[in-house]
Amino acid sequence: MTDTAVEPTRERRGRPGGGRDARIAARQAAAHAAGAPFLTRALKPFEVLDEEGLSLIEHNADTILEEVGIIFRGDPEALKMLKDAGADVEGELVKFPRGMCRQIVQASAPRIYTQHARNPDRSVQIGDPYTVLAPNYGSPFVRDLDNGRRYGTLEDFRNLVKLAYMTPHLHHSGGTVCEPVDVPVNKRHLDMVYSHIRWSDKPFMGSVTHPDRAKDSVELAKIAFSDQGADYLDDHTVITSLINANSPLVWDASMLGAARVYAEANQATLITPFILAGAMSPVTVAGTCAQTLAEALAGMAFVQLVHPGAPVILGSFASSISMQSGAPTFGTPEPALVLYVMAALARRLGVPFRSGGNLCAAKTADAQAAYESAATFIPTILAGTNFVLHAAGWLEGGLAVGYEKFILDLDQCGMAGVFVKGVDLSENGQALDAIRENGPGIHFLGNSHTLANFESAFYRSATADNNSFEQWLEDGALESPQRANKIWKRMLAEYEAPPIDPGIDEALNEYITKRKAAFPDSDV
Amino acid sequence: MTDTAVEPTRERRGRPGGGRDARIAARQAAAHAAGAPFLTRALKPFEVLDEEGLSLIEHNADTILEEVGIIFRGDPEALKMLKDAGADVEGELVKFPRGMCRQIVQASAPRIYTQHARNPDRSVQIGDPYTVLAPNYGSPFVRDLDNGRRYGTLEDFRNLVKLAYMTPHLHHSGGTVCEPVDVPVNKRHLDMVYSHIRWSDKPFMGSVTHPDRAKDSVELAKIAFSDQGADYLDDHTVITSLINANSPLVWDASMLGAARVYAEANQATLITPFILAGAMSPVTVAGTCAQTLAEALAGMAFVQLVHPGAPVILGSFASSISMQSGAPTFGTPEPALVLYVMAALARRLGVPFRSGGNLCAAKTADAQAAYESAATFIPTILAGTNFVLHAAGWLEGGLAVGYEKFILDLDQCGMAGVFVKGVDLSENGQALDAIRENGPGIHFLGNSHTLANFESAFYRSATADNNSFEQWLEDGALESPQRANKIWKRMLAEYEAPPIDPGIDEALNEYITKRKAAFPDSDV
Repeated sequence: MTDTAVEPTRERRGRPGGGRDARIAARQAAAHAAGAPFLTRALKPFEVLDEEGLSLIEHNADTILEEVGIIFRGDPEALKMLKDAGADVEGELVKFPRGMCRQIVQASAPRIYTQHARNPDRSVQIGDPYTVLAPNYGSPFVRDLDNGRRYGTLEDFRNLVKLAYMTPHLHHSGGTVCEPVDVPVNKRHLDMVYSHIRWSDKPFMGSVTHPDRAKDSVELAKIAFSDQGADYLDDHTVITSLINANSPLVWDASMLGAARVYAEANQATLITPFILAGAMSPVTVAGTCAQTLAEALAGMAFVQLVHPGAPVILGSFASSISMQSGAPTFGTPEPALVLYVMAALARRLGVPFRSGGNLCAAKTADAQAAYESAATFIPTILAGTNFVLHAAGWLEGGLAVGYEKFILDLDQCGMAGVFVKGVDLSENGQALDAIRENGPGIHFLGNSHTLANFESAFYRSATADNNSFEQWLEDGALESPQRANKIWKRMLAEYEAPPIDPGIDEALNEYITKRKAAFPDSDV
Repeated sequence: MTDTAVEPTRERRGRPGGGRDARIAARQAAAHAAGAPFLTRALKPFEVLDEEGLSLIEHNADTILEEVGIIFRGDPEALKMLKDAGADVEGELVKFPRGMCRQIVQASAPRIYTQHARNPDRSVQIGDPYTVLAPNYGSPFVRDLDNGRRYGTLEDFRNLVKLAYMTPHLHHSGGTVCEPVDVPVNKRHLDMVYSHIRWSDKPFMGSVTHPDRAKDSVELAKIAFSDQGADYLDDHTVITSLINANSPLVWDASMLGAARVYAEANQATLITPFILAGAMSPVTVAGTCAQTLAEALAGMAFVQLVHPGAPVILGSFASSISMQSGAPTFGTPEPALVLYVMAALARRLGVPFRSGGNLCAAKTADAQAAYESAATFIPTILAGTNFVLHAAGWLEGGLAVGYEKFILDLDQCGMAGVFVKGVDLSENGQALDAIRENGPGIHFLGNSHTLANFESAFYRSATADNNSFEQWLEDGALESPQRANKIWKRMLAEYEAPPIDPGIDEALNEYITKRKAAFPDSDV
């Protein structure tokens, strides 16, 4: 714990810009002192639609909310709350007057918030102009070069948490980094949340598969932060959880229930329509964006009604599908366009944005995996995404997480961190004296400017082989997954757990033991 | 030859905007009718510097030109011409008064020009808002899965020309797609230019390794276009050639000589500082950009003095280097920043811009190759690059061209073609009726809008495997290079040469036979 830790933030609309700018500057300085626990983007986002185009999508989202409506399934309490707020409710179908959801969201949802980490140096700012990178989420399978593809285990889960903890290129421990299939479904959330708390000190995500599991996640977080005071969570967000819509236009009871638990506890939710366009939305970019915005607005409005001011992130996960087989496809141009549009819509709404990652349909960490991942990840960064799930490890449309893929993706995350800083225009950056010193025809390797700057001059990839062909042959002619294999093994061998208060650790374990005993083993 | 062919263009400054816009619209319609022989970008370029930052780089370039100067080596005629134009010449060192090069370039260099192809449907527009993709250039080695890495041959050269001809995703046949090492150095340019003319009908590049070889390229082009009239080249550009600076701040006699030949014949040149930053320029982005602009301005001014109005493209090829080994590195963030800055500087100057491609340091078409290529190619497209060399095939920092890499890169080129069209906001694109028709909870696979649009809905990758893991296993668990291997073999098996006038073909062969007889075999 140091006093360079990130200053807590939760900004509502209407705050004076000057004060905000000053706070941002102070936070930037603090972040750099502490080793940059998140990216600070100096570049303006890339835009694919102008004001008129974005307004049209917003108008269409309102048309969907007004004319077609959203089903809130199996949650009578949600229906009553939405009706009381002015929605038109018939059965489980909820239709919203034009602008209603936007007004509710803009009235109370923060533009930016701090997610506090157990180690305050690792706390992150979620909102503009920052980007937080988190690992893969939700895969039942894992893959590594030694053992191939197999079901994930709790050991895999811990390994991935440890790798995410060790790398400077991820800022967040994530959530279900893989499914620990060797632990019963109704108990594994306890082991997952404990792993994030115990084997990392970065911020993490909670369980969303059942409202009771969300409650367990909150209780474990309360214990983890109990040294900060018993009521710490009341005004500090320490969990950000993933709430997916059941597209098209349905929010289900389990997700609504989990979202309610987190909102009531003042914790953050990623409100994310998960859309395979063509199956779960129209086959067009503009149609998919309007539907995504409608679903997200309804979900975020629900959260703000539950607890005004609870942090919400507008999430968008969109892939295209193969129109032959129906299989999801990644790295294609249409989802990149959706991503850029949705990021712009979130900025206009004034909430943090989640999307993207290193996504692919490839089965192994081959060229397909890398092309597809880069074709998602670069737009993710250029769009100005604030929270990036799946930044490392994803394979097979999310069915598997790869150890080698994880390491290769980390390198891309590291490069993004350099890119978003933009161009250094300081006198040293301009380097005119270096050119004057050399003159024409003289190389710069011995130039005093080069010698003064070479340590930090260029991003150094941990996974690329830049040697000559002959040297590469001599080194065994390894392809990149083989090099990555060595890296994750070395990292795990060198892993040291972050410190934890023994009393807190004991209390966490007591809670888990008690809760596990309350349930028979089950896989539902 | 059809009347949908691209209208010849060569735009100087000061033309009325309305007429230009109308012509652009007419050309777009023509291009689409003819099957899109180049990309038309609907998106605004991504910018990493603002007006102030770009002006600073321009100011520094002028400082370099004024204070440090450029060496024009071994070309007294060039020195005299530059002196007469107002430069300060001492020995071979040329210093330029502030603004001189810019004024010369802006006085006569076209903003955009047509490079005519033998098949007028394949003619390309080089300039904004268009992008022309050309294959790999300059590699002595080739690689394929069957035979590994080996020296390139004339057969490889022809194969790559054929593949570039067959794919809809490349718009240009390129130049030295590989070095045909089995042909003597002083004769191979004849076989290369002939291959482009005979085995493709797309536009091509000429030889630059000696002024006489440039002259041969022009003579062969004159024969190829002789059916258009004897003086066709006088007012039609049919060759675009690559003129590299010898950075830092040196233009060599062989490149100047070749540039002069092309300029005098009214043909186009890519004036390209080829920079491994840290060795051939300072280790910073801003320093590398200022030097690149200075070198390019001097080279382009030279060309405009030789022949005012001859098309020139501002080229930038910048990679970082490993500060440990000095090896060039690709796909890192710094060259991407250079690319975005240089594209903006070319727009401000008002000349077409060349950079990028699918560049990598990887030895094989593995994940490293793909990540690095995408991290160059996506910025290439988003920067609004007008002419893209190395869009397919590049490996090993350009030392090798890979057949499988070529095929995988083509897929990325195809995706770029969809991406740059941006978001369809037509009523069909908005797809509101599709959402109304379905309502909540109903998938879109059977929706009438989906059925009406599914053929063209999403980009279909030729190389990605999107099948289930089980299906992929059953299909042989192939990684992407193995799938690409099948594709290029099938393409070559199905290749059919474009038609050529037998008289022209005979005349080309006569010229080549005569010229080859004039030289002893040599490898210099």
